[in-house]
Amino acid sequence: MPHIALPDGLPGILGPMAFRPETAKPMNELADVLLRGPSTLTPGERELIATYVSSQNDCFFCQTVHGAVAAHHLGGNEQLVIDVKQNPSGAGVSQKMKALLAIAGKVQRGGKSVTPEDIERARELGATDLELHDTVLIAAAFCMYNRYVDGLATWAPSDSHIYREAGARLAAEGYQASTARQAAAR
Amino acid sequence: MPHIALPDGLPGILGPMAFRPETAKPMNELADVLLRGPSTLTPGERELIATYVSSQNDCFFCQTVHGAVAAHHLGGNEQLVIDVKQNPSGAGVSQKMKALLAIAGKVQRGGKSVTPEDIERARELGATDLELHDTVLIAAAFCMYNRYVDGLATWAPSDSHIYREAGARLAAEGYQASTARQAAAR
Repeated sequence: MPHIALPDGLPGILGPMAFRPETAKPMNELADVLLRGPSTLTPGERELIATYVSSQNDCFFCQTVHGAVAAHHLGGNEQLVIDVKQNPSGAGVSQKMKALLAIAGKVQRGGKSVTPEDIERARELGATDLELHDTVLIAAAFCMYNRYVDGLATWAPSDSHIYREAGARLAAEGYQASTARQAAAR
Repeated sequence: MPHIALPDGLPGILGPMAFRPETAKPMNELADVLLRGPSTLTPGERELIATYVSSQNDCFFCQTVHGAVAAHHLGGNEQLVIDVKQNPSGAGVSQKMKALLAIAGKVQRGGKSVTPEDIERARELGATDLELHDTVLIAAAFCMYNRYVDGLATWAPSDSHIYREAGARLAAEGYQASTARQAAAR
């Protein structure tokens, strides 16, 4: 049961976002810029970073829904999402992505964990300053979203069909539009 | 030295915010809603929560600048800010605030650390659902801001005058306006 009285039937972050639309607005805008805005990292790559950090934070809802968005962007490759969560350095992603995922994992543990060597390694593999910035901020932002979802003890469905549908919808519509539509449908 | 090439001379979070205004916009909007928007928690109380979490995350810039904003809102009471950072349960704040600071500390360690008993105790001391929601989200959001500032190894001034001035300016203008003005002045 959630720690506070949230609207019924809304999974994960959607409950507190419907409870407090004033904070939901910038939180969804940030997610859209970071995960779907113009970038030399693909939406699938950015969702993998979000999924990996959410997994490291043990947030079931976030790792499952963003894992579903990632898989949708990656042509339905759910195994790659599992591989990244379990062992990013052995997963079938580019060497640059492995270095970025390592940085994201450091940020999850604490900002000071990121070393100049971590950055240099990613740069040697082709990472730009903007990609490094966005990797750090995606990881940092999911340390917020994950704590928001679990710190309020929100409800999460267990049915994987629900997440696949949400993944397809979020991949198509984005975070602001999807949240607005779900709120309007209540 | 920052991990990426940030604009010179901007302390702490202002460097990466000038580097990436698209993400700075929603991040500042979120800070304004949470720390300065309509609330039954005073701006001073909310800045104390932000300062305490930043201190637990060992983020020098964030704990110092938000500590200065808190002190400004609290009539210049810098000792209270120090007390809250060192030992919130013994500081000169209300019993309700002590319970909210304890919840914020749990969120900093991880969302799942917050127990129904933590929530119940705060509620018995008068905390509303909106206050509980905002406490969890302020704590979660500072787990993002702190990791952003330290994960990019941003520069932070050591002179306490700079923070007192920033505290007064941010208390008067807010986060979006102050960042916009500083960006325009560059």
